[in-house]
Amino acid sequence: MAKVADKYLCVDPWKIIEEGFHSDRSEVSESLFSLANEYQGVRGFFDEGYSGKSLIGVYLNGIYEERFTEGMPYKGISNRLAFMVNTVNWLYTHIEVDEETLDLAKSKFSDFRRELDFRSGELLREFIWETESGKKLKFVFKRLLSMETKELACQQIRMTPLNFSGKVMLTMGLDFTIPHRMFNQNFWDCARKENDAVLCVTKNIGHRLFAGMNVYAEAEQTPIEEEKFVGVRLEVDVAEGQESMIGKSVALYTNRNPTQALDDAWEQGMSQLQTSTKKYDEVLESNRAYWNDFWAKSDITIDGDADTQQGIRFCIFQMQQTYRGVIDGANIGAKGLTGEAYNGNAFWDTETYCLPFYLFSNPKAAKALLDFRYKTLPQAMARAKDLDCEGACFPIATIDGTESCTLWQHASLQFQPTTAVAYGIWHYVNVTGDTAFLRAEGAELLVQICRFLASRGQWSAKGRFGYYAVMGPDEFQMMVNNNAYTNYMAKRTFEFALDVLSSLSQRERAGGEGEIVPRAEVDKWREMADKMFIPYDPETKLFEQHEGFFNLPHIDVDTIPVEDFPLYHHWSYDRIYRNDMIKQPDVLMFMLLYNQSFSLEEKQANYDYYEPRCIHESSLSPSVHSILASELGRYQEAFDFFHFATRIDLDNYNRNTHEGIHTTSIAAAWMNIVYGFGGMRSDGDILLFSPSIPAHWNGYSFQVTYRGSVIRVEVSQAEAIIKAVTGEPVKIKVGSQEVQVDQQGISFPIKDKEAVG
Amino acid sequence: MAKVADKYLCVDPWKIIEEGFHSDRSEVSESLFSLANEYQGVRGFFDEGYSGKSLIGVYLNGIYEERFTEGMPYKGISNRLAFMVNTVNWLYTHIEVDEETLDLAKSKFSDFRRELDFRSGELLREFIWETESGKKLKFVFKRLLSMETKELACQQIRMTPLNFSGKVMLTMGLDFTIPHRMFNQNFWDCARKENDAVLCVTKNIGHRLFAGMNVYAEAEQTPIEEEKFVGVRLEVDVAEGQESMIGKSVALYTNRNPTQALDDAWEQGMSQLQTSTKKYDEVLESNRAYWNDFWAKSDITIDGDADTQQGIRFCIFQMQQTYRGVIDGANIGAKGLTGEAYNGNAFWDTETYCLPFYLFSNPKAAKALLDFRYKTLPQAMARAKDLDCEGACFPIATIDGTESCTLWQHASLQFQPTTAVAYGIWHYVNVTGDTAFLRAEGAELLVQICRFLASRGQWSAKGRFGYYAVMGPDEFQMMVNNNAYTNYMAKRTFEFALDVLSSLSQRERAGGEGEIVPRAEVDKWREMADKMFIPYDPETKLFEQHEGFFNLPHIDVDTIPVEDFPLYHHWSYDRIYRNDMIKQPDVLMFMLLYNQSFSLEEKQANYDYYEPRCIHESSLSPSVHSILASELGRYQEAFDFFHFATRIDLDNYNRNTHEGIHTTSIAAAWMNIVYGFGGMRSDGDILLFSPSIPAHWNGYSFQVTYRGSVIRVEVSQAEAIIKAVTGEPVKIKVGSQEVQVDQQGISFPIKDKEAVG
Repeated sequence: MAKVADKYLCVDPWKIIEEGFHSDRSEVSESLFSLANEYQGVRGFFDEGYSGKSLIGVYLNGIYEERFTEGMPYKGISNRLAFMVNTVNWLYTHIEVDEETLDLAKSKFSDFRRELDFRSGELLREFIWETESGKKLKFVFKRLLSMETKELACQQIRMTPLNFSGKVMLTMGLDFTIPHRMFNQNFWDCARKENDAVLCVTKNIGHRLFAGMNVYAEAEQTPIEEEKFVGVRLEVDVAEGQESMIGKSVALYTNRNPTQALDDAWEQGMSQLQTSTKKYDEVLESNRAYWNDFWAKSDITIDGDADTQQGIRFCIFQMQQTYRGVIDGANIGAKGLTGEAYNGNAFWDTETYCLPFYLFSNPKAAKALLDFRYKTLPQAMARAKDLDCEGACFPIATIDGTESCTLWQHASLQFQPTTAVAYGIWHYVNVTGDTAFLRAEGAELLVQICRFLASRGQWSAKGRFGYYAVMGPDEFQMMVNNNAYTNYMAKRTFEFALDVLSSLSQRERAGGEGEIVPRAEVDKWREMADKMFIPYDPETKLFEQHEGFFNLPHIDVDTIPVEDFPLYHHWSYDRIYRNDMIKQPDVLMFMLLYNQSFSLEEKQANYDYYEPRCIHESSLSPSVHSILASELGRYQEAFDFFHFATRIDLDNYNRNTHEGIHTTSIAAAWMNIVYGFGGMRSDGDILLFSPSIPAHWNGYSFQVTYRGSVIRVEVSQAEAIIKAVTGEPVKIKVGSQEVQVDQQGISFPIKDKEAVG
Repeated sequence: MAKVADKYLCVDPWKIIEEGFHSDRSEVSESLFSLANEYQGVRGFFDEGYSGKSLIGVYLNGIYEERFTEGMPYKGISNRLAFMVNTVNWLYTHIEVDEETLDLAKSKFSDFRRELDFRSGELLREFIWETESGKKLKFVFKRLLSMETKELACQQIRMTPLNFSGKVMLTMGLDFTIPHRMFNQNFWDCARKENDAVLCVTKNIGHRLFAGMNVYAEAEQTPIEEEKFVGVRLEVDVAEGQESMIGKSVALYTNRNPTQALDDAWEQGMSQLQTSTKKYDEVLESNRAYWNDFWAKSDITIDGDADTQQGIRFCIFQMQQTYRGVIDGANIGAKGLTGEAYNGNAFWDTETYCLPFYLFSNPKAAKALLDFRYKTLPQAMARAKDLDCEGACFPIATIDGTESCTLWQHASLQFQPTTAVAYGIWHYVNVTGDTAFLRAEGAELLVQICRFLASRGQWSAKGRFGYYAVMGPDEFQMMVNNNAYTNYMAKRTFEFALDVLSSLSQRERAGGEGEIVPRAEVDKWREMADKMFIPYDPETKLFEQHEGFFNLPHIDVDTIPVEDFPLYHHWSYDRIYRNDMIKQPDVLMFMLLYNQSFSLEEKQANYDYYEPRCIHESSLSPSVHSILASELGRYQEAFDFFHFATRIDLDNYNRNTHEGIHTTSIAAAWMNIVYGFGGMRSDGDILLFSPSIPAHWNGYSFQVTYRGSVIRVEVSQAEAIIKAVTGEPVKIKVGSQEVQVDQQGISFPIKDKEAVG
């Protein structure tokens, strides 16, 4: 991997800390210091404004806009782009002393420090401003999003004059004038505003967003109104050596119904504002309690490697901020709520990369993610029809269930989202045992997915079933036939659906919404599954990524100059697609998802063949390789990939963290510990563990919630201990042995002492 | 082929005639009744305006505009669309009697008839208008574009009151306000206007177009000026039974230099107007002389089939109208100067489909087409660079030499324009013997083409050279590896270039612009040519269209419902690309271009395999099949394809003639006679003839200009006669025999009396 770390943050087990302001990384820091509580998210931009590089990004989950592109006028090609729209800067602050404006791009300042605490979700920033006339004023800015009351956000500003007494002029407000950067346009119309509140509506879709504030300060407040803006002006008397404090509590209230009466939206917002009375310290207290509970169940410790300890906690913290299943109809955008890249759209990452974290920490949230697909089944069925197919085709990118990818080659040729939904159902049911979901929503989804797979596939002249003109997960092989991943996943999907259907009672099949799938259709699916073409060479044990892959011109990826990366920016578009280089795992991907269906020899052969051809240009790539490398006993490789995956954003490996956090990729960092070093496998009847440990670690631990119990795994260089710390004893497998674990736990030596350093 | 003829025109050997107005085909007729003289073209719209469906299209060759599309932000993807822009309606006329406006969409009229005469290029239209008050006024509208003075256009209106005397109010003008339909926008700014002239400039590119007029009428002329419009109002006194005549001569003068002083442009236009004094009848006379000369050299007669006689003359007439090599820097747009579809862009059709007609009727024009490529070599070299390649890559679509196709999959993956330029050079030199061109421009072009081919191709793991991620001529196989056409044409291009280089003297290679190609580069090309992978099965004698084509799912194209055509409009985009259906010849295409390099058995096997898989959705398709069908003795098939090719527009087979004539496709109708039934082959050292004749024809004849002589071929059911009617005796081959033909000629029985009826 041609990746270089870009280190400037301090290492700390529970925080990210920036000492001294790094103006050249201002937008990277804004992404890293983002806060979110699933309902809302805010980038770590400066409250007081900053005339240098900055993206003032505030996003509300599920509040989006749409735009129609020119595109190609052919059937099945979507030209509608839905995007999570930038909303209101509720932190708006303007600060003046002696008519000089505070702006860290221009002002003289010292002692800059900021930190984000994973145990509270508090972002704190402090520095000393020295005005042109030599006045020194110490600032502490703090902000919080309430984990308890999702609509509530708090800001606190503390000021201490170090060498003077006098006046500080502040303006604090709610600013709806921020342009959406991607299109350099503001998408809000103001519907109503009063002193301390404003209601705006998105121009095209008509989503409503109410923002109201309470400002707490020992100063006269003069209201200000401007276009799409309300605020107050404060004249604060400050005294040398004494701290003054200004607080602001904000309620953000959304409604996605474009026909809702504006007065109703206003009333609902106002009543939310009136109940959002908690001030900063109360919210901080409740957030601490929330995160304390969370970490007690979901922490991962790494002893002896501060770098990855910080990295893994950052990943887990960001995941939990982004999604926890509390609001209806939300999914997980590729950048979470931290930036505008990928337009806030969710991808197949949800079921494939994010779902396991929730399955083993918050099964309700996992179910909510699958419910999102169930609720958007009508859109997926409409999409299948657009593609001249039957059943349901789930979108490659979406906010609201409708296909939002305007690049036809991805939207029309990639089907991993559809098989990923089936895989997600299977994985969810396998881990939780929630057969009620399976019999109802699950079965209905599976039937429509199989109908799509049956109608999109074709029979070859040789009587094999397969998929033509497809792109698999590896986006560097754009339009191929019989992609092994696509075919294999389709085969397993058919087989799973057929099992489910045969397990349904006659009553279940006929009752309610349930539809009886005709015998002939079932038989057809059986035949398609049986005769699915999986390109495989039994001699070499290699799966061929697609028909003809082995004959492609070879390129030694190590000879590509570092400055050519990312290739999408430096190579002509078509050049990427005509050799045996791959962007991300494809064959190795299905060998991970259905891990126990393949022999170690097969995994080894395919890893040896495909990893050297992979440039890991997708952030989803390293984790998958890390987990398989662990299984193959390649601990150094496993650790290197893990280190990368865990710190992809903290060290800005892909040089694009300024656009937002790789939210769905860092979900896989969790898998790296649990499935990688922990060796857990959840694709069998019972959980399997097979721990290993990097040689330079003293130990590590993680916990998984499984069928009501919490299983704790502690691994040191000497041994592994597995306990059921809460709940009933649980039967698991360790290596090939079935064992029951309870609060006492079991201990055993770890499998390979050759682990590397 | 699922094609249905749509007949409404009268059959005539020298004209197209419409009797009675077919308002449902108004735009089809506008295309068919188009006039052009290479410099300018005008659709057959009504002078007096028409509130029904109409495209008022007036185009000047080489006058275009540009527009930047949103597109994909990747390297090598063009987002600049250049399009031939709609210009000035120089026929603008408004006619009133008793304040009632003449408008055939609303007015009462009878005795409508229009005709276009191929022997003069005159378009005549007549009808009797009956006003609401019962006045009957007979109109004859005529128009002409001068073949002698390319800037000159003439209009004539004759009016005869049948049952009244009184006044007719006419406004005649030059109207620059016509919107360009494709973008529903007018692209002209007015720079200057006076009584009878107006100078406009295109908004983005700055091309200048001056239009001036002289109106001849026995009536007071009142000048009118409006925005982008000048005209005169005429009050004409008409007397019952007496014909009144109004004439207008127009000069259109273009300059493509955006920095030219506007006053200079005006002066040049005015001086053109002052010399364009010829009136209608004089121009008609000179046009008759021009076309008389032309037909004497280039006519094709068909005795006993009035339908195809009309069709083939229409095709030849349109070709000659569109291009004849008189203006600099012009090429042949896919729709000529008859409509806005394909944006006036030229494709590989020029070298592959159009060039033979000019090679054998007007070698200077053929050379001018190759000169266009030579002059745009810098753009082709820039394009190759964009694609991370060396040398020159010629555009898939262009007006000015720059790639103008914004669909990356065509622009980045189709290389037949580049090999077609090499083929065109080879064909031109082979037919004309113009080695001076070959040594100078030809060699330079070939070197740059080979550099592109060498850098775009790749070596397979098995040590074969070929092209990956390409689209061949068949656009239904979008992104494939080792397309047989692409590889074969590249191989022949290398071989031709190597021959040319080895024939150049040391002096030629070193002199002037000439560059000595390094030995190593020559050797590399030789190796690439030698090891080019051509997918071929010696047992079946089948070329595989691309690697893997034979394994594609089969679709029986005869089972596709007629209402699904054209598939681009009715099938989801990706669905088209995943079976063994083809849109147009690909393997059969190179078997036509290098016809004598393949055995009859090979041609037969491949025709039998590919023709049934071809849906002929490209208008370029039937002719190629017709020629090969003739060679294979399948005369009925050959005739059917020929009939289609010849009358594709007259019978509106593709349901899109309203967008313009299939100019480059109908060029191939000429090839159908000469190469098809005439059995001529020009890919050997000397011309070969091997005539056949459809059973229901009495005879046919054609003439080809070849190295200064005109060879006439006359074929009847009994025999063929071949003479050199002018010039020196010529050595040709008939079947396998070499013979010398002179004015006496030779005669021989035709090869196959089983020709069908």
